[in-house]
Amino acid sequence: MGMKPIAAWVLALSLVSASPVTAQQAPASAAETDPVKLGWMQGTPPPEKQIRFSDGSFLHFPKNRWSFAHYRELFPTARIGRGKGPVVPLPRALRADLATLSFTPDGETKPRNWVETFDATYGDAIVVLHRGKIVFERYNGVMNADQPHIGFSLTKSFYGTLTEMMIAEGAIDEAKTVAQYLPELAQSGFGDAAVRQLLDMTTSLDYNEDAADADAQMAKFMLASGGYPRPKDYAGPANTFELLKTVKKVAPHGERFDYQSVDTEVLGFIIARVSGKPAEKVLEERIWARLGAENDANITLDEAGASRSTGGMSATARDLARFGEMIRRGGRWGGQQIVPAPVIAKIRQGGNKQDFARAIWDYNTRRGWSYKSQWWHTHNANGAFMGIGMYGQAIYIDPKAEMVIVRFNSGPVGSTVGMDHITMPMFQALADRLGGGR
Amino acid sequence: MGMKPIAAWVLALSLVSASPVTAQQAPASAAETDPVKLGWMQGTPPPEKQIRFSDGSFLHFPKNRWSFAHYRELFPTARIGRGKGPVVPLPRALRADLATLSFTPDGETKPRNWVETFDATYGDAIVVLHRGKIVFERYNGVMNADQPHIGFSLTKSFYGTLTEMMIAEGAIDEAKTVAQYLPELAQSGFGDAAVRQLLDMTTSLDYNEDAADADAQMAKFMLASGGYPRPKDYAGPANTFELLKTVKKVAPHGERFDYQSVDTEVLGFIIARVSGKPAEKVLEERIWARLGAENDANITLDEAGASRSTGGMSATARDLARFGEMIRRGGRWGGQQIVPAPVIAKIRQGGNKQDFARAIWDYNTRRGWSYKSQWWHTHNANGAFMGIGMYGQAIYIDPKAEMVIVRFNSGPVGSTVGMDHITMPMFQALADRLGGGR
Repeated sequence: MGMKPIAAWVLALSLVSASPVTAQQAPASAAETDPVKLGWMQGTPPPEKQIRFSDGSFLHFPKNRWSFAHYRELFPTARIGRGKGPVVPLPRALRADLATLSFTPDGETKPRNWVETFDATYGDAIVVLHRGKIVFERYNGVMNADQPHIGFSLTKSFYGTLTEMMIAEGAIDEAKTVAQYLPELAQSGFGDAAVRQLLDMTTSLDYNEDAADADAQMAKFMLASGGYPRPKDYAGPANTFELLKTVKKVAPHGERFDYQSVDTEVLGFIIARVSGKPAEKVLEERIWARLGAENDANITLDEAGASRSTGGMSATARDLARFGEMIRRGGRWGGQQIVPAPVIAKIRQGGNKQDFARAIWDYNTRRGWSYKSQWWHTHNANGAFMGIGMYGQAIYIDPKAEMVIVRFNSGPVGSTVGMDHITMPMFQALADRLGGGR
Repeated sequence: MGMKPIAAWVLALSLVSASPVTAQQAPASAAETDPVKLGWMQGTPPPEKQIRFSDGSFLHFPKNRWSFAHYRELFPTARIGRGKGPVVPLPRALRADLATLSFTPDGETKPRNWVETFDATYGDAIVVLHRGKIVFERYNGVMNADQPHIGFSLTKSFYGTLTEMMIAEGAIDEAKTVAQYLPELAQSGFGDAAVRQLLDMTTSLDYNEDAADADAQMAKFMLASGGYPRPKDYAGPANTFELLKTVKKVAPHGERFDYQSVDTEVLGFIIARVSGKPAEKVLEERIWARLGAENDANITLDEAGASRSTGGMSATARDLARFGEMIRRGGRWGGQQIVPAPVIAKIRQGGNKQDFARAIWDYNTRRGWSYKSQWWHTHNANGAFMGIGMYGQAIYIDPKAEMVIVRFNSGPVGSTVGMDHITMPMFQALADRLGGGR
């Protein structure tokens, strides 16, 4: 099979794109696509309106408004267990004044109510913490406080943080190359990439995340890793690791930021190789099971049983908020130092702005930002930094406002860049209100 | 595709059979096939010795010694949550004298140590409760106290018990027919089968569980329900419910016992239809989340999201022991009446021995037994009854000895009938020892 047919087939699935989507016509509204009202997967068996993995329908908008909350029911997954300790409570101190807060999206002139905007932009769940207390919480459609939602690339921030912990302990050397940890990848484009370059995504690979590209490397990755259903005549790599072996280098590493999910897959394999355990098990032991989470998380697996470090993790909004709050507090949470304070301090320094400004993609909504340790750094006045996952998933940490926001979304647009003009001023308005005290 | 090719393909996968397997040569021993020692799925990615769903290798002995403890990592699953309540403890009162207990298998003359026999017959896990306390517990290979293991048809006993609860409440009428609850199946062989006949497996359908049969109905069921990987040119039913529509009747229902897993699938759909919820969600709410379980259970799903009521549930040995102990105590457990006492009393009456004796299969190791409400009744002197799952999974409840045994197995032989000559005298020896008091 040539590359064009794969790309065409994948595009036919309305795949995600890292580039802004220009809709041919306005997509159906959030209200029109509420998955409960639409009746997806209702009845057993659903007499109609079924959503399946095998036909790719789980990726289609508006079906993704159901499937993003049901990844475990569509994919093989590994448990990321909450452990057996007590839940670390998130006290509630709801702020009624937030419901009427308005903000003005970039490029617009009139203020909008932020809750209505959250709903209208296909928001599935949002939890806002201020000083560790829940000041706002909302669930739409099929979501509720105990329902895990796919986080997509929020997963990266977990693995990035975990890698930094292992670097701090000396278990991983950030200056060492991929070939030193994973000799099987020595001949690939990753061979001479340093761990640090993977963490900060400054590798230069013949890989991109643009589904509109005829080469469709992202599609090839997703087919290899089991993220998309395979055509019957699929003859590509059998799993993620086999795909990684085929990725080529196009320029010296370390010269500029280039967002490439495969970097995080390699990090996951390095964590596993160094620890002698599956990466998600290390994540469970070192972070998730120590958060006092209310629920297990889970992560999708490829055909060889490897977890999708780049984007396979599902969890509840509250539990991601616990993670974000732990990070905000310098790694200390529930009476334990979960991530060493120097590790958090290192992450919070942010990355190299020049590398970021040289990115292949023009992140015109993210000028002045940087990327470090699998976190996006806004370098705004509040020092906010984020995990970002496609379709609008977010963990937003605002140190100055003492605020953490977790947002889950589903909708017609995979690109988060295309949502920045709404997301960033919305989050800033919340920070301004909360940071101002009352 | 004709039937023969499917059957041949399935047989090539060394599929399970309900009929006793005559080994061409002695299979590798339990010690030789310890999945940890064999190194299955070690390393990330496993450089060799991978076990996959897509090539059917997960079903091959000895790979099943790993995969039976990792079904969630091979299949899409639904969570059957433990809820948020406290764990109901299983106090430990280990009996050192049990380690030296011997028994004589049927057809043998010399006594064997039962623990050595458990190990040698590919035992993965065993928990023995006496008066609700753990008197013996053992894990082999990749198993441990927190690792769920596929229960196969132990799942049936959960759904049978749940159906009886709903009958007791009047939510389901055991005299009503399948067509009355599921009109879509009116034209199938199930149409005029009563719920009672499903529960007791006295339907007469053109279906059997013998993979050696050229028609291979069981294989067709497993392909439709997603239990086995599909050949590329698969053109059969897309999911379990579509398969059920194709099952024909061969004789009047209600005249004899015929163990047919599809009956339990229909029960699951009736539970779902009546309750308006997925069957596994009802199971969670009514039973699992009330047991004070230590861990969630999970259940495999078909392409339409329906849970495999007939055999998809994985759980830990201790949590199944809690379920068995709840049943033994007449439905009361952890300070709650989880299953009404009259429901337990009804199940414990056992089924019609004449119906059982007329079974198509000659259950020569189970003479005098009956089958009721998805439980096997030995009608022995102790009134023991069991859930039984292929490859040797067992929940054994001995009221007189005040004993519950949960055993998980993997190995070369799918048939549990072929293991009865060991299983039954082994369990009886434990009952004799414990029932004697001390």
